[in-house]
Amino acid sequence: MDLKDIRREIDTIDSQLLPLFVQRMDCAKKVAEAKKRDGIPVHNAAREEEILDRISAKAGLYSGAARIVYRTIMSESSALQHRLLGSGGTLRKTIAAAPKVPAFPESVACLGGPGSYSHSVVSSLYPRAQVQFYNRFDDIFRCVEQGNAGLAVVPMENSSAGSVSDVYSLLMQCRFYIVAAKTIRVHQCLAAKESSPASVRCIQSKKIALQQCSRRLSALHLPLQPVSSTSAAAKAAAEDASIAAVCSESAAHKYGLHILERDLQNTDNNATRFAVISRQLCIPDNAEKISLCFNVAHTTGSLNAVLSRFAAAGMNLTKIESRPIAGKDFEYDFYLDFTGNVRDPAVLELLCSLQEELPRFHFLGNYCEVHTE
Amino acid sequence: MDLKDIRREIDTIDSQLLPLFVQRMDCAKKVAEAKKRDGIPVHNAAREEEILDRISAKAGLYSGAARIVYRTIMSESSALQHRLLGSGGTLRKTIAAAPKVPAFPESVACLGGPGSYSHSVVSSLYPRAQVQFYNRFDDIFRCVEQGNAGLAVVPMENSSAGSVSDVYSLLMQCRFYIVAAKTIRVHQCLAAKESSPASVRCIQSKKIALQQCSRRLSALHLPLQPVSSTSAAAKAAAEDASIAAVCSESAAHKYGLHILERDLQNTDNNATRFAVISRQLCIPDNAEKISLCFNVAHTTGSLNAVLSRFAAAGMNLTKIESRPIAGKDFEYDFYLDFTGNVRDPAVLELLCSLQEELPRFHFLGNYCEVHTE
Repeated sequence: MDLKDIRREIDTIDSQLLPLFVQRMDCAKKVAEAKKRDGIPVHNAAREEEILDRISAKAGLYSGAARIVYRTIMSESSALQHRLLGSGGTLRKTIAAAPKVPAFPESVACLGGPGSYSHSVVSSLYPRAQVQFYNRFDDIFRCVEQGNAGLAVVPMENSSAGSVSDVYSLLMQCRFYIVAAKTIRVHQCLAAKESSPASVRCIQSKKIALQQCSRRLSALHLPLQPVSSTSAAAKAAAEDASIAAVCSESAAHKYGLHILERDLQNTDNNATRFAVISRQLCIPDNAEKISLCFNVAHTTGSLNAVLSRFAAAGMNLTKIESRPIAGKDFEYDFYLDFTGNVRDPAVLELLCSLQEELPRFHFLGNYCEVHTE
Repeated sequence: MDLKDIRREIDTIDSQLLPLFVQRMDCAKKVAEAKKRDGIPVHNAAREEEILDRISAKAGLYSGAARIVYRTIMSESSALQHRLLGSGGTLRKTIAAAPKVPAFPESVACLGGPGSYSHSVVSSLYPRAQVQFYNRFDDIFRCVEQGNAGLAVVPMENSSAGSVSDVYSLLMQCRFYIVAAKTIRVHQCLAAKESSPASVRCIQSKKIALQQCSRRLSALHLPLQPVSSTSAAAKAAAEDASIAAVCSESAAHKYGLHILERDLQNTDNNATRFAVISRQLCIPDNAEKISLCFNVAHTTGSLNAVLSRFAAAGMNLTKIESRPIAGKDFEYDFYLDFTGNVRDPAVLELLCSLQEELPRFHFLGNYCEVHTE
């Protein structure tokens, strides 16, 4: 049989299949009305499993495929019902109440000392704010929690070394919001007190910076010592000629160091993503990134049923990470970033539905992402 | 309208919809035959987008939902075609050639020194092997690469602190296989040279161990110093009474330390997952976990189209992580773990199809996961 003929056959099938799908969605509308009238919840796991079992039994050879297609159909049907029933009222109110312009922060907390990468992000975003430096992430979060700083700038992920897991944990624990994000290209230098490397006996930096430069550093055959930040390493190098620091050019200048080597990082395209975090939600009109954390039921295909809903709302996934839930074996939270704006009705309805449906659902913010050299 | 009546209507629609889906899958079979005969590749992005556009234009109000359902149908159809065309021959051969029993390793590499958590995993799995200790992950991987150790034991993730990102990067770089995994519960102690904490001025440990105990440690108000391993911290504490170590009870005993406090970790259920890595693939008959890394096209819904295929093959997702690809902005690799055995035909066919379809696809191993107290 010719490919063209088979395709014509497929098109004929589709012309009958689609109207049935549309009819099925119309029925979901009627179901929503009946459920609203009688006060019945949208989700009915028993009925869903019953349908899936019947369908896959009837689909013969294609039972696995039929189950997946039907799970997708039913997930779209329950999304429609949630939309019609106006689910997720609390989130709806929180989003509606969020200001579009952040309050000007008098003080911003960040990691390290003058010249750290976090500091350069603070200076570019909030040039007039006072900067409070800390050596530990939990101190930064505590500072914001207690209102001693209006905002904080923290690193979220690096293109070569991955997510900064302690920042994610703290973000969830404190229930803060991300109100902006900025990605900067990282150029790591090797810097020391003297202009010759002869006296250097060890190399210090933040652990993630040492990882970013692992290729070049391993060729130097010197012991590596992780310290709390790149600027702390620069400070140590300024005090001791036997220590070289892996740090930014600006940190090297701030501490009067000589730059022994530039662009130490493994790839030329090494970038770090920083988030601005706040106790208060703030959603600019042009916000284009949404961060979420949720937990799905532990059944086959439950994650992709949820992901397909995001795709249906036109939202692109830009990050996903499963994280074991502390204290629970084999249960996971998912951290996700999507493109989108919550003032788009399709996006808002989806998030409100999911807040109702999922056992755990946290909206972490909707913000702008700035990229610079 | 009564809920029962609407459900009857839905069941009637389903009884017409399912046979059309089965017919459509039968057509996919014929398409595979025609493509095989004429040497045409399975994937035809232009035809797929044309169908999706036509379908969503016709679906009116339900255009987003229809697009998602159709993407799922077409993804199942192309999976069937790949299966019939016997795609992914290289992977098929690699898996067929893999031994079921690993060669006995004379030597196993791991992190830290005697008494480290990695060491305890090596001792339990390979009690007769010689152990080679290293302070850095890249040295461990190099040791296996050069054949100086047959296997290595490395930590992959922790239930409170997340994935060990440098191990994942090295695993991909070296193209090693995971041949076994073991999860152990971690009980962290605070240990020092003297039996009273009076002389302790700072606390040392591996960074991830300090994170795991952050709550109790922050109450102690002592400076925290990250070092290369928990056993390196124990060694330092044995040499200097002003240093306390966060380490295992066995490391404390090995270095003759007094245990000042037990169960320092934030949660009682703190577990770390270790992987046994090897240059050679080995798949035991009872292997039940599959690790993969792949990259999908950057279009809306492309990840969940792939995830739904795993669900169709009955494979449960137990881990997912997107990782920015070094040197490329906004392109991601996905690291995933699924339940399953590649000797199950549905699983093998799926992996072979995906190897053919996806721009980057790495099979990282199929192994047993051991859990212990």
